[in-house]
Amino acid sequence: MTGDAERRRREICRRAARIFYEKSFEGASMQEVAKAVGLTKAGLYHYVGSKEKLLFEIMNYGMDILDEAVLSRVAKIEDPMEKLKQTIAGHIHLIVHTRDLETTVILHENRTVRGPLRKKINARKRAYIEHLEGLVSAVQKEEGGPKISPRLAAYALLGMINWLYQWYDPSGPVKEDELARTFTQIFLGGLRNPAPITQSTS
Amino acid sequence: MTGDAERRRREICRRAARIFYEKSFEGASMQEVAKAVGLTKAGLYHYVGSKEKLLFEIMNYGMDILDEAVLSRVAKIEDPMEKLKQTIAGHIHLIVHTRDLETTVILHENRTVRGPLRKKINARKRAYIEHLEGLVSAVQKEEGGPKISPRLAAYALLGMINWLYQWYDPSGPVKEDELARTFTQIFLGGLRNPAPITQSTS
Repeated sequence: MTGDAERRRREICRRAARIFYEKSFEGASMQEVAKAVGLTKAGLYHYVGSKEKLLFEIMNYGMDILDEAVLSRVAKIEDPMEKLKQTIAGHIHLIVHTRDLETTVILHENRTVRGPLRKKINARKRAYIEHLEGLVSAVQKEEGGPKISPRLAAYALLGMINWLYQWYDPSGPVKEDELARTFTQIFLGGLRNPAPITQSTS
Repeated sequence: MTGDAERRRREICRRAARIFYEKSFEGASMQEVAKAVGLTKAGLYHYVGSKEKLLFEIMNYGMDILDEAVLSRVAKIEDPMEKLKQTIAGHIHLIVHTRDLETTVILHENRTVRGPLRKKINARKRAYIEHLEGLVSAVQKEEGGPKISPRLAAYALLGMINWLYQWYDPSGPVKEDELARTFTQIFLGGLRNPAPITQSTS
């Protein structure tokens, strides 16, 4: 796609995401989306195919920006620990970066995309989890062998970060760098020295 | 409320939650909910007041079961570390306990409840965060003073656990006790020995 067409596609995804976020996918009409992006309803259908395909495009766009904010930024870092830290910082930055908030939220409302489109989005999500899991494994290897499941650790990290949109207020007292530092301290601290839990620890 | 009335209220909440979960709040009709709970539409309105009040009731029920699954079970435990462990285990149990999955998911879709009802739910959510925050502080005190923000740690824990509904499959290979153990190891490990992140750690 040319730069202009790509910018246009992203603009439509962002605006549609905002409307779906506010009114829910079922509650919003294609008429409203068309108006918000300056197209006729027929023009919008011509452009995106269907309401479900539009939702898929938004999700796909959500994964594109996750790849850009995280994967492409850390691709050249060799040290696993540093790569994991930058992954955490990049992902947090994406979530608290309000311009794309609606897109990242909609990414997780995947009940309404079905069939092959759903499989495509799930494959991209899986690739991201595998990125996290690979980093966790590499860090554990450097620190003397695995202690806890890299996959469960990857999901724990993903939850810590993705849950931000439920509570984090960028205009509040906690700044993004404090957030990134604290989450990194907890997660990496837990990876390096998992708490013993079979006996009482007090 | 009598035991029977309370059971009936919970049953309605659970069935309505399932419908709202499947079709979204905006996409589901009160007619469908009425049919599912064996009432006429007029009967349902008489019983719950409005669609928005029904959603509020579901959320309130979600907080009731969280209180029962977690707060009331740990109320008598004195040791902060043990109390935190049991809080984690109880909360995970609630999330992976599929009977109430829809209710706990809907609890976080709070865009559609407004005004005083929203304030009530948010106050109950805040009380839960304060419970977690208090436990984190108490554990830090026992371990030699706070190292990281108890509030941010509380939200990190909440995210790890609440995100489970996005990916965890109770019929898959990971059993609930492994999940609880791993999350506890990561979180408590991170609390006790937060990773240093100002200098390179490799």
